[in-house]
Amino acid sequence: MALKDSYLLPAAADMHVHLRNAPGPIAELVTPTIRKAGIDTVFVMPNLAPRPVVTVDEALEYKKALQAYDPEVNYLMSLYLHESITPDEIRKAKKAGIAGVKAYPRGATTNSQWGVVSFDPFHELLSTMESEGLVLNLHGEMPSSPTDNVTVMNAESKFLPTLASLHSKYPNLKIVLEHCTTADAVAAVRACGANVVATITAHHLSLLVDDWSANVHHYCKPSAKSPEDRRALLQALVTSEGKFFLGTDSAPHDISSKKGKGNTAAGVFTQPYALGYVLTALEEGIARGDIKEEQVTEEVLAGFLSEFGRKFYELGPAEKQILVKRDGAVVEESLKTDKVEIVPYRSGEKTWSVEWQ
Amino acid sequence: MALKDSYLLPAAADMHVHLRNAPGPIAELVTPTIRKAGIDTVFVMPNLAPRPVVTVDEALEYKKALQAYDPEVNYLMSLYLHESITPDEIRKAKKAGIAGVKAYPRGATTNSQWGVVSFDPFHELLSTMESEGLVLNLHGEMPSSPTDNVTVMNAESKFLPTLASLHSKYPNLKIVLEHCTTADAVAAVRACGANVVATITAHHLSLLVDDWSANVHHYCKPSAKSPEDRRALLQALVTSEGKFFLGTDSAPHDISSKKGKGNTAAGVFTQPYALGYVLTALEEGIARGDIKEEQVTEEVLAGFLSEFGRKFYELGPAEKQILVKRDGAVVEESLKTDKVEIVPYRSGEKTWSVEWQ
Repeated sequence: MALKDSYLLPAAADMHVHLRNAPGPIAELVTPTIRKAGIDTVFVMPNLAPRPVVTVDEALEYKKALQAYDPEVNYLMSLYLHESITPDEIRKAKKAGIAGVKAYPRGATTNSQWGVVSFDPFHELLSTMESEGLVLNLHGEMPSSPTDNVTVMNAESKFLPTLASLHSKYPNLKIVLEHCTTADAVAAVRACGANVVATITAHHLSLLVDDWSANVHHYCKPSAKSPEDRRALLQALVTSEGKFFLGTDSAPHDISSKKGKGNTAAGVFTQPYALGYVLTALEEGIARGDIKEEQVTEEVLAGFLSEFGRKFYELGPAEKQILVKRDGAVVEESLKTDKVEIVPYRSGEKTWSVEWQ
Repeated sequence: MALKDSYLLPAAADMHVHLRNAPGPIAELVTPTIRKAGIDTVFVMPNLAPRPVVTVDEALEYKKALQAYDPEVNYLMSLYLHESITPDEIRKAKKAGIAGVKAYPRGATTNSQWGVVSFDPFHELLSTMESEGLVLNLHGEMPSSPTDNVTVMNAESKFLPTLASLHSKYPNLKIVLEHCTTADAVAAVRACGANVVATITAHHLSLLVDDWSANVHHYCKPSAKSPEDRRALLQALVTSEGKFFLGTDSAPHDISSKKGKGNTAAGVFTQPYALGYVLTALEEGIARGDIKEEQVTEEVLAGFLSEFGRKFYELGPAEKQILVKRDGAVVEESLKTDKVEIVPYRSGEKTWSVEWQ
């Protein structure tokens, strides 16, 4: 076998999660699955509907509601970059321990209707974030546009000049290119200084465009791309050196938003089995020859799954350890209450399991 | 307005349709919608399940069953290229009026599991088709393969060297590259001699990858691609000169195959409103600047919708005429019997209507 049967690792940190409105039926179902996956720290995205999280008070209230579902998790809260946010609010955010401000290009994904059209009007805000040390989290896609030949397949690559320009304009601003999906993005992040990093999801380590073409549970934004792109992500993971770390972008949707009438909501739900999926994807990548067996060391896993994200967000090391074991888990067909049903990624399949030590 | 309010045209020919097994509940529902769209001649695809049409007798029996649903339509029948077909069967097919032999790369689309892995073993058959004047109809996609970096997005472009090689090996063989979807394919077909033509569907004149990413009713093989590709298809239509003509690839699937459990079946159902969709797509293409208003003449429409296909298959001109009128139709939400429900393309939207003269 390519990998060891088990790895003893520091508790994981998932630096990009969607938990939805709290209190609320999806948050109630999903939040308790975070620690099940071996994760003790999550960066919580602010794109709630009907109103995103734009004030520190809202973020803290949201955090309190999530703590009611699981007080053991460390929730890193964020604001949704919006013109209503003042430099004073940024300073208040830093003091209150808010971890980042998320920028959504308008129209690029779920609940991005309040998002950014141009970064120019945000100059003062970004400068304040730079001096305060508050992280900018980027959904790195241009909105699709037939006129500009932007589609879901090249939307990320077309965004990369914006990343480079933000980095050059605000060299001390800490930036995360969230859920990167392309070889282009991996190269662009590597080309930037140490302040620029990227998260990689679990599902983009195994999905291709073909997989989501016929399966709505595999459809997300940014969409999964080509075999070359997937190879670049796997390579980025095993050669990260702090530049790339886990952010699952786990995005729970009720099955009615996936299989019901009308268009399919974008998002892959990976929260309860996030680490298992990563390990399975690494095994498959080794089998395909995308990465080499010897590249997947305990050190690499600990860095990508736990240490690099914590370091970037200036947290201390994990206090607890987890044991990740081959084939210990079978993914549920769905997570279900009387109010919602959410189908997890690779439902019904075997994956690696996690035990808290 | 960009276009005239109505066009008097020869009855249309749809040189690529899926009518499914006959007798059968889908064929019973769909076949009577052919003439509703202003079409009197259809090329019927042979990829039935559980067994494709591989003998002349089967094709003629299938034809008879379709005639029972609508005797007024001229059904051009085809065989499914398969190792069980002999050169004698090809000669028999020509005598019996079979119009073509369809080649499916194995694994590329619906019911392609009996398809072609390599064309080399078919040398004698293809030579016989060449000398007999029987058309080769190509599903022009390589099967997806992570090893070879083939995905649904580049599968057609990767197939084009095979088209060029078949044309060079059998220069007198009449070849149709079915449902072409890319600028690459348009250029490749133009680069071949007069024996090589391509069909273009109605839906690929308006769909992009973004449209099918979140809407299962827009998902088909080959999948819709980029704005540049769509522009190339619209340009091919208005500058066809016989090289490009209508083949809708209308592919009815029960809603359970689209929205039910499991993966989504590939195919867009366009039969009852095929001409309306083409006219609507041309109007939208003019509005976007992909084509010019003056390029859409009565002559261009008559050629693409009716004359070029008939000429390629060596049929006489249409006997009847149709009047295609702006905004006369609203697409049904679905076509429904107690056995099946099929959602048509652009359901609920306005489109052009057709009247028989």
